[in-house]
Amino acid sequence: MKDIPYKIYLSEHEMPKNWYNLRADMKNKPAPLLNPGTLQPITAPELSGVFCEELVAQELDDTTPFFEIPEEIRNFYKMYRPSPLVRAYCLEEKLGTPAKIYYKFEGNNTSGSHKLNSAIAQAYYAKKQGLKGVTTETGAGQWGTALSMACSYFELDCKVYMVKVSYDQKPFRREVMRVYGASVTPSPSMETEVGKKILSEHPGTTGSLGCAISEAVEKAITSEGYRYVLGSVLNQVLLHQSVIGLETKAALDKYDIQPDIVIGCAGGGSNLGGLIAPFMGEKLRGEKDYRIIAVEPASCPSFTRGKFAYDFCDTGMVCPLAKMYTLGCDFIPAPNHAGGLRYHGMSTTLSQLYHDGLMEAVSVPQTAVFEAAEQFARVEGILPAPESSHAIRVAIDEAMKCKETGEEKTIVFGLTGTGYFDMVAYEKFHDGLMEDYVPTDAELAESFAKLPKV
Amino acid sequence: MKDIPYKIYLSEHEMPKNWYNLRADMKNKPAPLLNPGTLQPITAPELSGVFCEELVAQELDDTTPFFEIPEEIRNFYKMYRPSPLVRAYCLEEKLGTPAKIYYKFEGNNTSGSHKLNSAIAQAYYAKKQGLKGVTTETGAGQWGTALSMACSYFELDCKVYMVKVSYDQKPFRREVMRVYGASVTPSPSMETEVGKKILSEHPGTTGSLGCAISEAVEKAITSEGYRYVLGSVLNQVLLHQSVIGLETKAALDKYDIQPDIVIGCAGGGSNLGGLIAPFMGEKLRGEKDYRIIAVEPASCPSFTRGKFAYDFCDTGMVCPLAKMYTLGCDFIPAPNHAGGLRYHGMSTTLSQLYHDGLMEAVSVPQTAVFEAAEQFARVEGILPAPESSHAIRVAIDEAMKCKETGEEKTIVFGLTGTGYFDMVAYEKFHDGLMEDYVPTDAELAESFAKLPKV
Repeated sequence: MKDIPYKIYLSEHEMPKNWYNLRADMKNKPAPLLNPGTLQPITAPELSGVFCEELVAQELDDTTPFFEIPEEIRNFYKMYRPSPLVRAYCLEEKLGTPAKIYYKFEGNNTSGSHKLNSAIAQAYYAKKQGLKGVTTETGAGQWGTALSMACSYFELDCKVYMVKVSYDQKPFRREVMRVYGASVTPSPSMETEVGKKILSEHPGTTGSLGCAISEAVEKAITSEGYRYVLGSVLNQVLLHQSVIGLETKAALDKYDIQPDIVIGCAGGGSNLGGLIAPFMGEKLRGEKDYRIIAVEPASCPSFTRGKFAYDFCDTGMVCPLAKMYTLGCDFIPAPNHAGGLRYHGMSTTLSQLYHDGLMEAVSVPQTAVFEAAEQFARVEGILPAPESSHAIRVAIDEAMKCKETGEEKTIVFGLTGTGYFDMVAYEKFHDGLMEDYVPTDAELAESFAKLPKV
Repeated sequence: MKDIPYKIYLSEHEMPKNWYNLRADMKNKPAPLLNPGTLQPITAPELSGVFCEELVAQELDDTTPFFEIPEEIRNFYKMYRPSPLVRAYCLEEKLGTPAKIYYKFEGNNTSGSHKLNSAIAQAYYAKKQGLKGVTTETGAGQWGTALSMACSYFELDCKVYMVKVSYDQKPFRREVMRVYGASVTPSPSMETEVGKKILSEHPGTTGSLGCAISEAVEKAITSEGYRYVLGSVLNQVLLHQSVIGLETKAALDKYDIQPDIVIGCAGGGSNLGGLIAPFMGEKLRGEKDYRIIAVEPASCPSFTRGKFAYDFCDTGMVCPLAKMYTLGCDFIPAPNHAGGLRYHGMSTTLSQLYHDGLMEAVSVPQTAVFEAAEQFARVEGILPAPESSHAIRVAIDEAMKCKETGEEKTIVFGLTGTGYFDMVAYEKFHDGLMEDYVPTDAELAESFAKLPKV
């Protein structure tokens, strides 16, 4: 047994050269996206008006197991990757648990999260296609920041529609995007037809992610040389994010470490899908077994209380339909502070895996999440993002079960990002003003009733 | 010639086991601190009422070249160190320079800067001495955050006096300290005699670093089981920060890289003194030669326009006198956004080295600093702190000189921290509202006239 360092880093030549496409190993493939007009499986030409061509190919390919990471992207990855796999020695000691806890820390880059892994890939393919720029939406702002950084690197124009309430409440996030040369517009805006329509119907609205998506899509479709990009949910995003899991597995393999449990927070699924990819692959191929746990907020419990059904990916119902665990595209989650987990649906790939019993899911209330966040920060030093702290909560819970049973389980969780721009949430927590929202059965039933009949 | 990776990391066993005390190799030692009452060199017993005993010993020792880093501190270092030495390939390419640029990045920890290197050491010695807690002041908040993290780790009480204007303007910094369990008091406060006095004389004052120091010192002296700790200027702090330079040198040595120029920003000198320590040591011992450049803001130009004289370390004139480059302890720097560089004086060690012609200094206006910051962020990804960006400015300037001359110089600079809590400054820069302040000769003359007669 080798000595395990506090942080396991891969060297540059040990970094992944390919992304892993989990779908290739799935017996039950995720159901295809449907064209919202025809309700037929959407085709590459249909998608190519919205997304870059190579990304469309990645989106629709469920048989090719590996996609080579282009050298330009690997060079960018080298600026902030490999991310460390950290042995949480101090947390283990503090908990008094025999469990061995590791976390893959994705927060050591200016976007503050794993989102950059896909942003740089999407920007690269846009550049390669000769596009002028890309459009997107952002809520909490991590995705927008990541995309701004990526576009700045490839000298692409970047147009971000930021949900108005976040634009006003998070001026610093907006400012980081400006550092990277992005134009940031509060949504709804007068720049798009859909924005104008919403503003005339709901003057004074503070916006929503669904509306921002609609504006970004409209802008992309109506502007010469632009495409729309998205930071989660899509298969292409999970493909790019597989770099997280591949690095994690390579680092563990270097020290002959076999995890028992792999834990990640789940919003749209980009981090979780990336982290678990190679582990789930082994499980699907019958080579190894792991417990894999998705953690979601009790206020937005897509897996644990949602329906597995076709639904729209956006509130405006202009995007394709996906078969996924969903709370209904009209469902407005209560104001949980983990903005990155407030999505009504879930990646189709993860949805299928969960449906097939290949992974577990738990939901946790936000005060318990912030308790775990603070406990973690105090012993491990890192100030975690609220989203990431969902995984911390369950990692600690599992480690405490080991303390009771005496089992020396190996737990790996994804620490997706830092919380520097979430101090309002921490302040509420400290001041005892944080509330735990849980949707009622009646609320969910009402939302489910509006699911499209497919 | 080996291939140089984007980031050079040391393995755990390559990390320094000793701090290096630069003073041991200085022929002309820094002048001793003077007791403000007697104007005689201050003694260990006199200092021990304010500082922890082992730290006093480190402060006064100018002959021992190495101090072993206690294992507890090395273990904490392993949580966030070694910090990467990054080859700025992308910046080089963008500039089109033949120069090779490296930066030692100290921002990948929650305090956001190198300050944690000394905070954990000072907290450790306080714990070892059986103290209950420590007090300190903080301006911009990085030092207070670092100390909060360190105290949380060793379960020490931490009392931070935060300059009131920062307390109000930077609520998020304050909140991060609360995450780590520190109590944060806006200064001046009613908790101390000096605070009450100042509040009665200047109702409505927004405070100053000098006042916050006085409150923190008073609180430490008058509380059983407490000592005062400071994040810069002192010899002990430079000693702890030598870990930056030692790691940098070890990383360069691994690849047989010889720097020509070493550049760091200079406020009180904690980062610069730490970064240059082993390089300056070689220079002092006549083994090698390097250009070493201190960069300071044009608004607070201690080296470039200050006097080399004994002066008080604090505005309240309760702390010892130090012989240093100073603008006068009454000098109030204009509101430059690099809060960490707004100190009237400078480390006695660096002052002596500069006086002896062993290093250079330049001052730069803040808009030029933010231009460099943004240029750097866009190609290297990292959002730099305003303080660190002073070093970036001069590194770019030197690299551009190489472009003119065709020289392939190797430039190393210290990237001390991240700018996530400095977005107000970036916003002003983007909006064209940033001003360049430069003190007039008359202002400086007035300040120099008040220097103590020693």
